[in-house]
Amino acid sequence: MINQYQTRLNTLQSHLAKENIDVAIITSPANVFYYTGFNCDPHERFMAIVMDNRNKEFYLFVPALDEEIAVDESFIKNIIPILDEEDPFVKLKNKLSFKIQHIGLEMKEVSMYSHNQLQIVFPEASYDDIQGAINKQRLKKDRNEIECLQEAVNIIEKVLAEGIKKVRNGMKESELTAELEYLMKKFGAVGPSFSTIVLSGEKTAMPHGTPGDRRFQSGDFLLIDFGVITKKGYCSDITRTFIIEEATEKSRKIYNIVLESNRAGINAVKAGKALKTFDVAAREVIEKNDYGNYFKNRVGHGLGIEVHEEPSIHGKNEQIAKIGLCFTIEPGIYIPNYGGVRIEDEVYINEKGDVEVLTSFPKELQILGI
Amino acid sequence: MINQYQTRLNTLQSHLAKENIDVAIITSPANVFYYTGFNCDPHERFMAIVMDNRNKEFYLFVPALDEEIAVDESFIKNIIPILDEEDPFVKLKNKLSFKIQHIGLEMKEVSMYSHNQLQIVFPEASYDDIQGAINKQRLKKDRNEIECLQEAVNIIEKVLAEGIKKVRNGMKESELTAELEYLMKKFGAVGPSFSTIVLSGEKTAMPHGTPGDRRFQSGDFLLIDFGVITKKGYCSDITRTFIIEEATEKSRKIYNIVLESNRAGINAVKAGKALKTFDVAAREVIEKNDYGNYFKNRVGHGLGIEVHEEPSIHGKNEQIAKIGLCFTIEPGIYIPNYGGVRIEDEVYINEKGDVEVLTSFPKELQILGI
Repeated sequence: MINQYQTRLNTLQSHLAKENIDVAIITSPANVFYYTGFNCDPHERFMAIVMDNRNKEFYLFVPALDEEIAVDESFIKNIIPILDEEDPFVKLKNKLSFKIQHIGLEMKEVSMYSHNQLQIVFPEASYDDIQGAINKQRLKKDRNEIECLQEAVNIIEKVLAEGIKKVRNGMKESELTAELEYLMKKFGAVGPSFSTIVLSGEKTAMPHGTPGDRRFQSGDFLLIDFGVITKKGYCSDITRTFIIEEATEKSRKIYNIVLESNRAGINAVKAGKALKTFDVAAREVIEKNDYGNYFKNRVGHGLGIEVHEEPSIHGKNEQIAKIGLCFTIEPGIYIPNYGGVRIEDEVYINEKGDVEVLTSFPKELQILGI
Repeated sequence: MINQYQTRLNTLQSHLAKENIDVAIITSPANVFYYTGFNCDPHERFMAIVMDNRNKEFYLFVPALDEEIAVDESFIKNIIPILDEEDPFVKLKNKLSFKIQHIGLEMKEVSMYSHNQLQIVFPEASYDDIQGAINKQRLKKDRNEIECLQEAVNIIEKVLAEGIKKVRNGMKESELTAELEYLMKKFGAVGPSFSTIVLSGEKTAMPHGTPGDRRFQSGDFLLIDFGVITKKGYCSDITRTFIIEEATEKSRKIYNIVLESNRAGINAVKAGKALKTFDVAAREVIEKNDYGNYFKNRVGHGLGIEVHEEPSIHGKNEQIAKIGLCFTIEPGIYIPNYGGVRIEDEVYINEKGDVEVLTSFPKELQILGI
């Protein structure tokens, strides 16, 4: 069996050859992980895969203090440690001594500062964007990656099932957050894949609110939007909204519109259709019920190694959906000073071009705490 | 009393005027927080303070779904929401319709992609780096910020005091990590300021290892390096190393060398001296004991709103230490396949130019679990 990292590196090498790129420098930690298996947040320190396509050599530049882990984890074994007092760009130049004409970079990742530093050490080089080629590779998830994503979903759904047992009238948002994040680790995750959102009452109207001291009250919406990152380095992201103790006619109605919208979005997913059609299908349900003004964001986003990746599922995205995409469908209705509902699932476009839903936590309205 | 955000914005405005910069675009979430009080991770969405220095207007561009929180939290009240399907650069151009010659950017923050997009909408503009001016402002912490940093230290030290009571022979690194992060939230933090490091035995030789399934054993070093981010948005970072049940002569010796090094580093701190001297003072202790090859990284880093900020305290940094700096002193000895010790404190150069140590958790060797 061919190593998956070798396969991924080969694909990128072919792209470089086709585009006449001499050297690729890959600095996004997520992309370094994708191509090497080495998962590291170097903070402000320099880290990069350097792929010299002239002599087919790979190097992994890492902060010296991470060298030992890199040696253990990285598929690329030619590891070059950089001390804190060294200039990484000079070190890069010394390694790639002979003349370079075309350098490939991730243009959404490389800062203007790094670009300037590269221009100093490689004054004759031109710079090409390889972000698109890398994103295109990462967009297409194979079954092996989907199993990793499914594991992340399974953990978070287990956390959710256990977590909602602890919900009671009077509990603080921040208390439930602490319980949920404790359970993530207990069930084997590394930790949350993004800042856990637990909101209640009128705060649920804020799609990205922060859990605080507000205590759950009867009649509240309780919105939980969270995910984990697993030891294998994959993320999950799910939202469920509950009601505490007692629903009103209005809160039930809003919930059920969002549920219908979520299902319409998921049912629209198929390879060969424009991505915008998934957003439109979900949005139409909310609009026809006259809540269109209360759903202002896109219906979903890709995820994988990162919790937000390509594609972006919004109403103007004309890109055609392809096999291998994994993304969220998460319509919502957010009414200021009243509250909001969001129901978020993760879907995959499988080998047949059909939708496969990775999340399976029940989504019919649940009243908690009675 | 003048609002602190107004003061900070005024300082930057003066810089822009002096440098003939028409418009500053500030996109780092930490800097947006520093100047507005609005704390938001926009992920891949566009967020920026736009400071038009020609008419002294400020705008805050935010993702539409964060608008409500921005209205609540931001000192800049002129908030412009961006929908997911809108092009933020076109929106920016429309807001700043008349001709711009000089744009100030954070060059370490702005990607080559964003730079290209800006060049499309502002083809006649030149770009100046305002990163240095902003960093210089953030470097100098006033007493108010130090109180926020002290609060972050107080929480993490309380977590550490409670946390080590739970340590027992046979416990997994990941279990202790879960307990510690639960306590962070229980004691009022938003969460960890970086990925909590709990390592044991030979794994302590890796300065940035990941907590895993390894179980604590008698004789192990147990290294805990962690911090919190508080509700006010400030970070802490502390390391203590313990020994499980039973120390050897060698483990005691190494511990005490690191302790002496830590104290020497802290005692060297004073305004007016070059930053490198703090690294050198700590390193000399380790070198004179013949462990110099086992301490390869810098002795410390600044922290504040971010857990890693300027300055970098390494052996070649000739910058002169000034009043208001806050940074870590964290020497260590890391011996592959044996283990490592790190002792990390946070220090502040106070109004008199003297060192003030924010951390106060005891650092004499503690044997746990007996």
